[in-house]
Amino acid sequence: MEKLFKYIDENQDMYIEWLQDACRQPSVSTQNRGITEMSQKVANYLKNLNAKVQIVPTGRHPVVYGKIMEDKKKTLSFYNHYDVQPEDPIELWNYPPFAAEIHDGKLFARGVADNKGNLMARIAAIHAYQQVYGELPVNIKFFVDGEEETGSQYTHDAIESVPEIIETDGYIWESGYKTPDGAISVRLGLKGMLYVELQAEGANTDLHSSNAAIIKNPAWRLVWALSTLKDVNERVNIKGFYDNVEPPNELEEKILENILYHEDHMKENLGLDGYLLNLKGTDLKRKLIFQPTCTICGIVSGYTGEGSKTVLPSKAKAKIDFRLVPGQDPSRIVRLLRKHLDDHGFNDIKILKISEKKAAKTNPNDPLAQVVIKEAEEFYGKKPQVLSMSPGTGPMYKLAKQYNIPAVSFGVGYENSKIHAPNENIRVMDYIEGIKFVCKVMKEFSEFEDNKEKYFDKEAIH
Amino acid sequence: MEKLFKYIDENQDMYIEWLQDACRQPSVSTQNRGITEMSQKVANYLKNLNAKVQIVPTGRHPVVYGKIMEDKKKTLSFYNHYDVQPEDPIELWNYPPFAAEIHDGKLFARGVADNKGNLMARIAAIHAYQQVYGELPVNIKFFVDGEEETGSQYTHDAIESVPEIIETDGYIWESGYKTPDGAISVRLGLKGMLYVELQAEGANTDLHSSNAAIIKNPAWRLVWALSTLKDVNERVNIKGFYDNVEPPNELEEKILENILYHEDHMKENLGLDGYLLNLKGTDLKRKLIFQPTCTICGIVSGYTGEGSKTVLPSKAKAKIDFRLVPGQDPSRIVRLLRKHLDDHGFNDIKILKISEKKAAKTNPNDPLAQVVIKEAEEFYGKKPQVLSMSPGTGPMYKLAKQYNIPAVSFGVGYENSKIHAPNENIRVMDYIEGIKFVCKVMKEFSEFEDNKEKYFDKEAIH
Repeated sequence: MEKLFKYIDENQDMYIEWLQDACRQPSVSTQNRGITEMSQKVANYLKNLNAKVQIVPTGRHPVVYGKIMEDKKKTLSFYNHYDVQPEDPIELWNYPPFAAEIHDGKLFARGVADNKGNLMARIAAIHAYQQVYGELPVNIKFFVDGEEETGSQYTHDAIESVPEIIETDGYIWESGYKTPDGAISVRLGLKGMLYVELQAEGANTDLHSSNAAIIKNPAWRLVWALSTLKDVNERVNIKGFYDNVEPPNELEEKILENILYHEDHMKENLGLDGYLLNLKGTDLKRKLIFQPTCTICGIVSGYTGEGSKTVLPSKAKAKIDFRLVPGQDPSRIVRLLRKHLDDHGFNDIKILKISEKKAAKTNPNDPLAQVVIKEAEEFYGKKPQVLSMSPGTGPMYKLAKQYNIPAVSFGVGYENSKIHAPNENIRVMDYIEGIKFVCKVMKEFSEFEDNKEKYFDKEAIH
Repeated sequence: MEKLFKYIDENQDMYIEWLQDACRQPSVSTQNRGITEMSQKVANYLKNLNAKVQIVPTGRHPVVYGKIMEDKKKTLSFYNHYDVQPEDPIELWNYPPFAAEIHDGKLFARGVADNKGNLMARIAAIHAYQQVYGELPVNIKFFVDGEEETGSQYTHDAIESVPEIIETDGYIWESGYKTPDGAISVRLGLKGMLYVELQAEGANTDLHSSNAAIIKNPAWRLVWALSTLKDVNERVNIKGFYDNVEPPNELEEKILENILYHEDHMKENLGLDGYLLNLKGTDLKRKLIFQPTCTICGIVSGYTGEGSKTVLPSKAKAKIDFRLVPGQDPSRIVRLLRKHLDDHGFNDIKILKISEKKAAKTNPNDPLAQVVIKEAEEFYGKKPQVLSMSPGTGPMYKLAKQYNIPAVSFGVGYENSKIHAPNENIRVMDYIEGIKFVCKVMKEFSEFEDNKEKYFDKEAIH
């Protein structure tokens, strides 16, 4: 593939400009900002690859579906999303979040790591392959979601109206990152999620805080209710929350032990004294990968500016995400949460369910998983960090696992990509390398049956 | 005083315009917005009364001091403040907060009830008295604070540089309101306050919430810490918090029992099911007036917009006010709070002290208190609601009580004035009435020694 890689190197400025173009279009799904423009842009990128493209309407933001069917034996799909998280707190960004400026070899933009960098690397890979070889080794499908960052609640509508979307031999899933030692992370699953907003109300207007002696304070109600959900030992106290949680199996435990998690590097990078519960090593990794969570993602009530304001707030709300693992059903968890609040005297706290999805895992022995793991080692010169499950979340269950389609996630981020946070960035060279690696995965996946002997090497799993 | 009251009625449009002029100048002390302009405006209002005026610098916003010394036997002082609370949440205002629009006989503006309406009523009273009678019955001093809403931390500097400010026979304190049955509230004291910000920190940047499985969440730390401060039974659990709290004495208990607190009206007005702990009657009033509080005035962390954002916040903060009663020293409470947090494992939570002041009470048998209580009944045709202590707070201890100066608070608000909240307003006719009542209090206070027999009537205290 020397010729192909040379072509990519020679045209890297063009591919970087493509990425900047994609990042300069805000596409914040939760605020419905720039969504139409971005979906149109993605459609045009795909048309430029001679793909047949449909903008498939859903209950919310459309899916952009593109296919390049050249009558190959296998079909490989890319699941990506064109939406991004909100950019606030904007004052903490060193560069404008939608300017896509490059500084010190890093491209800074909201969504560049999660996951416009990956979407564009895959588009660039197809383009380069076509330019150099005239045809692709596999049929290709792009499944580009428009509401991943808000929970992909309506994404499945696209499968219902265009069932062929899921006729595929496997998905390369949305994103991933490189570890500090230069290996890439390969993720074979995703945690599930239940995202809720808890709401408390007091008087029908904010009041002078002197009234707090006798009038209900929704901020206190919310704080008290929250404090019953999880204790300082990180135990979720909702009755039944841990029922049916599937522990890692033997192979997964082995994979877990072999993960190089750069805990000291991360700790230093993030200014931390240590990890929760002073966990280290395999215990730390097991908690990150196989344990469900209960997280306050946001809380607000009353006056939050500088100095003092003596107000009794009329409202309080908290945003809570529960990351779920196989065995946990988000619909059941929300019922348990309601019961928990009622049982603890908080029937005045309302629950607004914002999104829910189940966890998903792909078998490490699946051909696509084998190809990615093995080729990653060869291409990057390091055994990849294999995660049975990403601690993140996506609609992998609904769009893949429920149809028994394997899904393997990797991408062009690195450990300091700050996804969902200010100063999100990727290293430009990771992006260029990532384009090449996608080419390699396409080619090797097409030849899997001919090269079976080089896979299923136990040592490849680590 | 018929002639005087007639003059006030005939000139009410002018006095209303004066008030609108004062309300149209924003003067938000916590944001240092419009402070210089407002202090200059107040100085001009006082010069217009032929007062000798000084703008007295302090460590923060200046005090405007004006005196009209006509060699009378007695000196009466007005303590007011020209600063206001921030106007946010601005989206909940029905009219612009600094437009001073009049709708349905109500003037809407930030600060109109607390307390520009009172300041201007007192200025208007002096003006009218001078116009009609040519001279005042007492010497007058205006002590106009510029940072009452941020805790008057530097206000006392003005007394140090101009000691004559406190040469007075009594203060009419800043504000008050009318009850739903048309009586005015007369307040003989103020609760103290300790206002702090509690701060928690996690990683040095916001992170993707998948990291919450292993990385400290400052929002959880803050919620857990707060939940130890006060329990659902409204008991403050800081060890020593209630030490030395002075319960109401016999006279105060009698006054308490006789307060008409319109609990059903208030409840309905505010959309409440009931009061805290289902309190009613004297128990409710006792808690409001004589019990200290611990109130979350604000809390914020992470994402607080619409929809979902899966973020692990890097910071969390809460604004807490403790309303204190006689016997409680705010300097001691902040030490107890530090110890409480440390003892409960929250030495990572920082305390930023924003303001502190002690509670103050004036003896109901004091001449100024007697004059106000008795004349209020005569003027308003209803026995006033007498509160031994306002559940609100001000610098009464530091500027009056520590020098044994009596201070009596009343004003032109009403029960729905929404002070410190959106849609702050007063009824215009209460303002005009309030101008007249100030005239009456000045006159009767000047003649107190000649009319002693009509005071000290036990039934006047209720």
